[in-house]
Amino acid sequence: MYGWEAYLSERDKKHDEQWGKKELYGFGSKPAFVLIDIYYSVLGFKREPIFESMEMWPSSTGLEGWAAVDKTAELLAVARENGIPVIHVKGLHSGVNHWGRRKRKLVEMSPEMRQRGTQIVDEVKPVEGELIIEKAAPSAFHGTPLTFQLISLGIDTVIVAGETTSGCVRASVVDGATQRFRMGVVSECVFDRTEASHYMNLYDMHNKYADVVFLEDAKEYFNQIGAANKQKIHA
Amino acid sequence: MYGWEAYLSERDKKHDEQWGKKELYGFGSKPAFVLIDIYYSVLGFKREPIFESMEMWPSSTGLEGWAAVDKTAELLAVARENGIPVIHVKGLHSGVNHWGRRKRKLVEMSPEMRQRGTQIVDEVKPVEGELIIEKAAPSAFHGTPLTFQLISLGIDTVIVAGETTSGCVRASVVDGATQRFRMGVVSECVFDRTEASHYMNLYDMHNKYADVVFLEDAKEYFNQIGAANKQKIHA
Amino acid sequence: MYGWEAYLSERDKKHDEQWGKKELYGFGSKPAFVLIDIYYSVLGFKREPIFESMEMWPSSTGLEGWAAVDKTAELLAVARENGIPVIHVKGLHSGVNHWGRRKRKLVEMSPEMRQRGTQIVDEVKPVEGELIIEKAAPSAFHGTPLTFQLISLGIDTVIVAGETTSGCVRASVVDGATQRFRMGVVSECVFDRTEASHYMNLYDMHNKYADVVFLEDAKEYFNQIGAANKQKIHA
Amino acid sequence: MYGWEAYLSERDKKHDEQWGKKELYGFGSKPAFVLIDIYYSVLGFKREPIFESMEMWPSSTGLEGWAAVDKTAELLAVARENGIPVIHVKGLHSGVNHWGRRKRKLVEMSPEMRQRGTQIVDEVKPVEGELIIEKAAPSAFHGTPLTFQLISLGIDTVIVAGETTSGCVRASVVDGATQRFRMGVVSECVFDRTEASHYMNLYDMHNKYADVVFLEDAKEYFNQIGAANKQKIHA
Repeated sequence: MYGWEAYLSERDKKHDEQWGKKELYGFGSKPAFVLIDIYYSVLGFKREPIFESMEMWPSSTGLEGWAAVDKTAELLAVARENGIPVIHVKGLHSGVNHWGRRKRKLVEMSPEMRQRGTQIVDEVKPVEGELIIEKAAPSAFHGTPLTFQLISLGIDTVIVAGETTSGCVRASVVDGATQRFRMGVVSECVFDRTEASHYMNLYDMHNKYADVVFLEDAKEYFNQIGAANKQKIHA
Repeated sequence: MYGWEAYLSERDKKHDEQWGKKELYGFGSKPAFVLIDIYYSVLGFKREPIFESMEMWPSSTGLEGWAAVDKTAELLAVARENGIPVIHVKGLHSGVNHWGRRKRKLVEMSPEMRQRGTQIVDEVKPVEGELIIEKAAPSAFHGTPLTFQLISLGIDTVIVAGETTSGCVRASVVDGATQRFRMGVVSECVFDRTEASHYMNLYDMHNKYADVVFLEDAKEYFNQIGAANKQKIHA
Repeated sequence: MYGWEAYLSERDKKHDEQWGKKELYGFGSKPAFVLIDIYYSVLGFKREPIFESMEMWPSSTGLEGWAAVDKTAELLAVARENGIPVIHVKGLHSGVNHWGRRKRKLVEMSPEMRQRGTQIVDEVKPVEGELIIEKAAPSAFHGTPLTFQLISLGIDTVIVAGETTSGCVRASVVDGATQRFRMGVVSECVFDRTEASHYMNLYDMHNKYADVVFLEDAKEYFNQIGAANKQKIHA
Repeated sequence: MYGWEAYLSERDKKHDEQWGKKELYGFGSKPAFVLIDIYYSVLGFKREPIFESMEMWPSSTGLEGWAAVDKTAELLAVARENGIPVIHVKGLHSGVNHWGRRKRKLVEMSPEMRQRGTQIVDEVKPVEGELIIEKAAPSAFHGTPLTFQLISLGIDTVIVAGETTSGCVRASVVDGATQRFRMGVVSECVFDRTEASHYMNLYDMHNKYADVVFLEDAKEYFNQIGAANKQKIHA
């Protein structure tokens, strides 16, 4: 059960039986792991329920966000153990006019705290040698060198974690599929502010652009790739 | 009422009260009207309920699709009357490997009928002088000259109709907003196979990337632009 | 001798000794062969010296163009024998406003002849199963699905023929290198209207973005790839 | 006289008479000024002739580069006086695999000096409020948010300065023209390592993609735009 079933209408359920995806597309032999927008301002500095967290960080995803971060940290460790290229994507703060047109009143805080809000959380922070890409778009691909790097490394599959499921994750997954990469979304490692958006975007991505898989499957996939690569080196 | 309210969870409704969009972003002074993927194979040759229509055209959107086509034809007439540039977007059938990875069994039919399935429906078909753009991606922008044409015409606002709300419409709206065009989605003129996807994608687009507006508002907007342009010419 | 030496200044020659490229970058294991803009209007229907040919086709490249076409036909045969994916790129004539801003007076001719002018010449025309990509830009990559196809096929190297060296070939080579494909330009298979532009663009491409190679080397490369692929299949 | 005449062959001169560009395309009403890659490592810390400068900075452009920097500083002042949006473009140093495949031996120097080599030279350095865009491509457009910003500002014309004429300037001008912006290259404000490449790329750009103009003309254009904008505000 992926969780989206509860959000489908009765007609949708019948439609899904007839038209819905029944088999995974499958992944390739050269994956990268891409972490999208996992910084403090969408989580808060403390682990709090969403409505409490929103008092300071109005765009917080609350405890569901933190739960996904912990799962992402697990998968990140497995990716690193197996030599899977890891790419971190975050917002660019350089003065480019923002794609979002909402003017939101900012909660008052010190410049240091606001700055810390833009930092990737410690649980999944980049280590030496991992690429950080800054984007001025919802998608990790648009207006960034991400495609350049993926082609340069011969990547055929992109496994995605981060937030929001209905925002930058969705946009990146559509673009990755458009570029003809095989896309994977790890169910426990993506998160959102809105429950219905979270589940319906998982549904859309799974049916159109990506395989939505579970954490254990993603770990196993990275382990298999790691084992195959070790064999190649020893052969 | 936009219709998405029924699909939100109780928590989502509370969240939306606090964080949801309260005001439209607004449109600019130089719009284009872009019609996406309104061809027979997603509607059927006959106007039938979705499950009947799917017998011949498994990707049909049924009567809801046809209703949106009729509304789109209304808006198209207003766009043409007011000299709004109209761009039709449809699939490219040239042999580029498809972004969709589903292998679907095709319903048996004559090559002529299959070919007709790829044609834009008569109700909104292009007239002399209207640009047709073919895409090999969900988005109308990716791998096409759409941005070139919009910049060339000095367009600042893109009003969208077509299908599916959760597929090519959504992908195009995200890309258009990314490119910093003002995006509008006409509620009655977009359609989908899945009700929950339709409404939740309207919700996502409205809250992140576009103004979802009603047909009457879109007509009024095109009429205002047309009137302003006439005044400029006479001035 | 590549031919560009004659166009360098004395200072340039000294500079080139110190800074110029001394070794090829090398090609990868999965090439595609891309033919750019080899249609009648840049060659003429008859094989004539450039100034005679220009009377009917002002943008003709004359006999030098035809010589390159014959060499390209040779290389195309070798590519096909070896199962190298072949992609033909030509202009899109759909009403998109052109990137070129020159208004040129058209030579009078029948619509049939003008239409034939846009066709790929018989010597290198596409065969069943070869992709044709239409572009509304100098580069074969911009606003087209070319990158999608290359990624889909796992291509790492793009070998280029066609015209003009200083126009669409150059633009495509820069974009291909930007996308991190290994780029090759076949010296005898690219052509131009302007001699100095031809040679200086070869020089620029070789020093910055691509390996400029000779026809025999390109043939040998395709033969090696073909032989390696056969071995893989038999293994 | 643009300077490229000396590099054309006799046939080219005759060809140019018949086919060459005779009139400027003209600029629009909303320009931006884009400065490309004007940092110390292509100029050196001292103003020295190219071969001396290359001892420390092998990619230096020498005194010709410095002369162009001084002219660019003049034009930059005029742009700022007239409220023309200024955008600085420089290399991204984040670990993305480079598009250039040359391995060059680095001259030994301290990390501080090498770091200073990547900085924009004081003569044209950004002031508060001017956007800096970092690129991982020859072109300022590819893999960057430059197009987003230009569309956001309603820009129709891009005036370019910087280096090298045959490298990042050329690539950016081709991409800008592809995107349907009106492109201008200021003859005295672009520079290169290779004389023939400099002049032949000016020739190519002028004949295909841009108006190559002189510094005085560019100043006058910016002054006119500034005066027109002041009038609008007062009207």
